[in-house]
Amino acid sequence: MENFNFYSPTEFVFGKDRENECGALVKKYGGAKVLVHFGGGSAVKSGLIGRVLASLDAAGVPHVELGGVHPNPIDTKVYEGIELCRKEGVDFILAVGGGSSIDSAKAIAMGVPYEGDFWDFYSGKAPAAALPVATVLTIAAAGSEGSGDSVITKVDGMLKRGAGSDLIRPRFSVLNPALTCTLPAYQTACGVTDIMAHVFERYFTNTTEVEITDRLCEAVLMTMVKEAPRVIADPNNYEARANIMWAGMVAHNNVCGVGRGQDWNSHAIEHELSAKYDCAHGAGLAVIMPSWMEYVVDHNPMRFAQMASRVFGCAMNFENPKATALAGIKAFRSFLKSIGMPINFAELGAKEEDIPEMVQKLNPGDGWGFQPLKAADVTKIYQIAAKARL
Amino acid sequence: MENFNFYSPTEFVFGKDRENECGALVKKYGGAKVLVHFGGGSAVKSGLIGRVLASLDAAGVPHVELGGVHPNPIDTKVYEGIELCRKEGVDFILAVGGGSSIDSAKAIAMGVPYEGDFWDFYSGKAPAAALPVATVLTIAAAGSEGSGDSVITKVDGMLKRGAGSDLIRPRFSVLNPALTCTLPAYQTACGVTDIMAHVFERYFTNTTEVEITDRLCEAVLMTMVKEAPRVIADPNNYEARANIMWAGMVAHNNVCGVGRGQDWNSHAIEHELSAKYDCAHGAGLAVIMPSWMEYVVDHNPMRFAQMASRVFGCAMNFENPKATALAGIKAFRSFLKSIGMPINFAELGAKEEDIPEMVQKLNPGDGWGFQPLKAADVTKIYQIAAKARL
Repeated sequence: MENFNFYSPTEFVFGKDRENECGALVKKYGGAKVLVHFGGGSAVKSGLIGRVLASLDAAGVPHVELGGVHPNPIDTKVYEGIELCRKEGVDFILAVGGGSSIDSAKAIAMGVPYEGDFWDFYSGKAPAAALPVATVLTIAAAGSEGSGDSVITKVDGMLKRGAGSDLIRPRFSVLNPALTCTLPAYQTACGVTDIMAHVFERYFTNTTEVEITDRLCEAVLMTMVKEAPRVIADPNNYEARANIMWAGMVAHNNVCGVGRGQDWNSHAIEHELSAKYDCAHGAGLAVIMPSWMEYVVDHNPMRFAQMASRVFGCAMNFENPKATALAGIKAFRSFLKSIGMPINFAELGAKEEDIPEMVQKLNPGDGWGFQPLKAADVTKIYQIAAKARL
Repeated sequence: MENFNFYSPTEFVFGKDRENECGALVKKYGGAKVLVHFGGGSAVKSGLIGRVLASLDAAGVPHVELGGVHPNPIDTKVYEGIELCRKEGVDFILAVGGGSSIDSAKAIAMGVPYEGDFWDFYSGKAPAAALPVATVLTIAAAGSEGSGDSVITKVDGMLKRGAGSDLIRPRFSVLNPALTCTLPAYQTACGVTDIMAHVFERYFTNTTEVEITDRLCEAVLMTMVKEAPRVIADPNNYEARANIMWAGMVAHNNVCGVGRGQDWNSHAIEHELSAKYDCAHGAGLAVIMPSWMEYVVDHNPMRFAQMASRVFGCAMNFENPKATALAGIKAFRSFLKSIGMPINFAELGAKEEDIPEMVQKLNPGDGWGFQPLKAADVTKIYQIAAKARL
């Protein structure tokens, strides 16, 4: 196990009706004036924004609102938020929504106290300060409610890049599974795929003898395999929604990823897809991740066989472990298809002829991770993904 | 899943040589003068205390020392610590040791700013303030490095009682697995047993459909089953020590226990044993926990069958699930015996004739938990434990 620091100071406030505690929570964490930051109209129409604002009013916390966050959040909205916060004297950002609203809120939080361009933090610079951020989560997916990460797309050039700092870990996150019951099946499945991808990016490692984090990763994956079909069959299954929501946090606050090398190549390869076609991140991952697995399986067939056996219950082939490994990858892709995810370019709406452009934009250099990937490798993975079938 | 709050703000600083960062960490978390609190001479002889003090000196942090914490920490040492801190103007407590030193440090931390008797907090009162606490862990066992709990024994009457508050969650905890390599096999096995018991107390619940926390619990248990024999066979196996150490934190910071009813009857029943005979807590749990399982198995045989199948790999008997349940309990007791734990009163040094006295002291009333236990039930569990065999 490698040396590591683990720090996850967010207070998670989980369960039915907990969004009504927002006002008290903002006060507890020192907010004097709040920006409520959200996406489309669904959070308004559902009455959620109204309940959050009522809770702030009841606690005597003044607030301003900024909606309209794009599903792949963009820099122009961040600039708008920074300006609004400065003008209004906001000192606390409350995101209401999914990973997009939260990531946009985190960008604004870093940008407000910074004299330069906030994009610096998405180009490698570490922030020295940030406004406190908190969240009311409406989709189990990105794990941003418990992470110090944020991904923003720069409209000029459609560059999708990430930033990370403990300063943007949420002070509190309200996780009410009931809020996710109105999600369409497709978005629910995209979230499940994203959660599984967050685990797989940690699971496929070159660090050996990391049983505890292996087992924790497998715990999240097995939970997805059990619970996802239940919510697809019955969107109002609160218990299944609750299991997925807590699993989504565990998948990405890094408790199951510490002390081991991680990968994240599938995420980087996917980011070019959602930047180019504006598809859902989870849908892109459903196309890319099994294809990445097929491409790198020979790097360590036993690790894939472990996944196949422990997570998908594939029988271990002791004479031919790679056969088990491939059966596990097939089981993963079948699972994704079964919950309504696309598994190839055509189903996603992507085009094979765009592969060179995406590879050029990704520009992997010598690569890194589980199996370092250069441009030629990424090309082959896109090609596998383009034609993938069950 | 039940509504819950989860808050684990401790910074975990994990890996080789990390104790040398104590000085910088105390400064980061605002300590101006530190009490270094520890147990017997082993931490001094090994050079660990010297390294910690050198790190504080290098960071320019003044300190006073108080050693001699008893393995089942007692109130008299806590009073001594409170007085010393007040006299010396200490504002930060750094525990170096296992659960005993940490729990004693937490008691001192609550006691210093409190005008009354600190024992009030072990009699149900919630603290309003506490000095910040941090830890350098030397045994994976109690999970106190990541919890807001503390257990202290009052010498007058040998009352063993617990207190809990977010205020005593450690600011940081240094987890260096190499520090545990010098532990004797018996203490190592006691720690493993304690870790497994922390999970089982959460695992046996009446809350249904909690797949994510079930799976996380099983992840910790399976890790213990794999790694404990490796450290018993080779005390210097750093990787196995590291897996056990992180699992010990995960087992008790409650990430795997949220949203579900918990039990803790085995802990309460054991506390009377360690209070009476001054045995190691883990050893007492090895005697009590499987006996408790045998007594309550009929309350929910399928839950025990799940444990048997998923954790110990017992074949599921679909015609007779209770047979699988009992096979799992037997496998657990065999595992404990295999790592050198006592499994009955004689091996522990306890006496059957003391059962009525222990039951009277425990005074369970109407009981609570997975299966509420009254005095007659506790008596029967002690009787099973007295005579247990493989």
